[in-house]
Amino acid sequence: MRQGLLRVPLTSLAPGLVPLSPEVARYVSRVHRLREGERFLAFDPERALEAEALLVGSGKGPSAARIDVVRAASLVPRRAVTLIQCVGKGDKLDAVIRDATELGATRVVAALSARCVARPQGDRGGRWRRVAVEAARQCGRGDAPRIEGPLPLTEVLEALDGEAAVCLDPRAERSLGTWLGGMLGDAGGRRGIALLVGPEGGLSEEEMDACSSAGFVRVRLGRFTLRTETVCAAALGALLALDDDAQERADAVG
Amino acid sequence: MRQGLLRVPLTSLAPGLVPLSPEVARYVSRVHRLREGERFLAFDPERALEAEALLVGSGKGPSAARIDVVRAASLVPRRAVTLIQCVGKGDKLDAVIRDATELGATRVVAALSARCVARPQGDRGGRWRRVAVEAARQCGRGDAPRIEGPLPLTEVLEALDGEAAVCLDPRAERSLGTWLGGMLGDAGGRRGIALLVGPEGGLSEEEMDACSSAGFVRVRLGRFTLRTETVCAAALGALLALDDDAQERADAVG
Repeated sequence: MRQGLLRVPLTSLAPGLVPLSPEVARYVSRVHRLREGERFLAFDPERALEAEALLVGSGKGPSAARIDVVRAASLVPRRAVTLIQCVGKGDKLDAVIRDATELGATRVVAALSARCVARPQGDRGGRWRRVAVEAARQCGRGDAPRIEGPLPLTEVLEALDGEAAVCLDPRAERSLGTWLGGMLGDAGGRRGIALLVGPEGGLSEEEMDACSSAGFVRVRLGRFTLRTETVCAAALGALLALDDDAQERADAVG
Repeated sequence: MRQGLLRVPLTSLAPGLVPLSPEVARYVSRVHRLREGERFLAFDPERALEAEALLVGSGKGPSAARIDVVRAASLVPRRAVTLIQCVGKGDKLDAVIRDATELGATRVVAALSARCVARPQGDRGGRWRRVAVEAARQCGRGDAPRIEGPLPLTEVLEALDGEAAVCLDPRAERSLGTWLGGMLGDAGGRRGIALLVGPEGGLSEEEMDACSSAGFVRVRLGRFTLRTETVCAAALGALLALDDDAQERADAVG
């Protein structure tokens, strides 16, 4: 967002004078050089709310904000999309969460599968949530995806909630494009979608069978074997584009 | 590629006994622990050729390969796709070239625009070509995209070669999906496509006007402002998926 006000995430957004945490005060005044009396856009990524805000302080720098009318966030995803990402090496999930946020995923579930190399330790959930909120801030999105996990893949498969579900598999005969084309063109136009992406070594045959039993359709994207961290952006880009194309076709017919 | 032979890039692939460079010999024996008498798949990414090969040596480790019948590479992209990427910070172009290779771009042009932060120094072209060949090796692709630049954006715009061209712009009204849907559904089914992606700060208004004059259509992908390094994977994923979907529709009609 080059144009417009600086966006600042604030939880529990409500009208009136609210104190700023030292982190937020430092962020607006040091990182972005906003001064008392200047305006910014406060957004509450958990509740998808936003409000204009005025920076106020005590002479020693900004310490509070006067929040204007709180309204529904203007830019949020149009479809519920769950990305189930098997955890890879190092901080790859950070990069995947950034991509997923910019490209409209509404839920990201970190899953542990047989060939996962990394076993996340400590409060990775908190870190991943912060990454998602920062990505939402940067891309102009008024909410942030819900982050869950890490959870065993078998548990994740059992917790599907009526979404149309696919599993990316370079050996699949069917393509993501033809699957999406059929799905989005049908009456199930607003149905939620779940995309499952395996870890670096792929899913095991047993896991693939469990996915099929849970209703996941195996699809490929392109002809080559994608790295696990490339799949999210490519598949969500495909979904956005086919959604727009299907909408255009529906409008032309209607 | 979990299954199958180790893929090793070799230039000037021809049948018979060929010496291996010290780098290639080290790569197959040290990194991948292949021994004399073992087979691998040699591929020539510049000419899209491949051949089975047998590792031979002198007792002090592998030093040559006996190349079998040379054939056309089995997996290559089906459409000519040029990615014009304005150069961003640090080594972001490395990551973009990896994504572009996996997702089937046949040509990547590094462009210098007004708001480019980085001005690449030295032989970046050589480095970028090595990144593309390694990505091709990993993803099972039999060729590698041609890498050009860095070149001034104005020069790149003048050198279009009949491709249908789009420029990604978060403020565009038209979506990449509807543009691709129309374009791929038309008779121009096998036409080349050029995608232009601006740098972090976006293209200037003058550059946007120059793009329009050169025939680039402005399109958005999704509703949010993507980072420059996310666009390539998302847009190429969209192209692959819509290509497959259009092919399915054409087959259903024909």
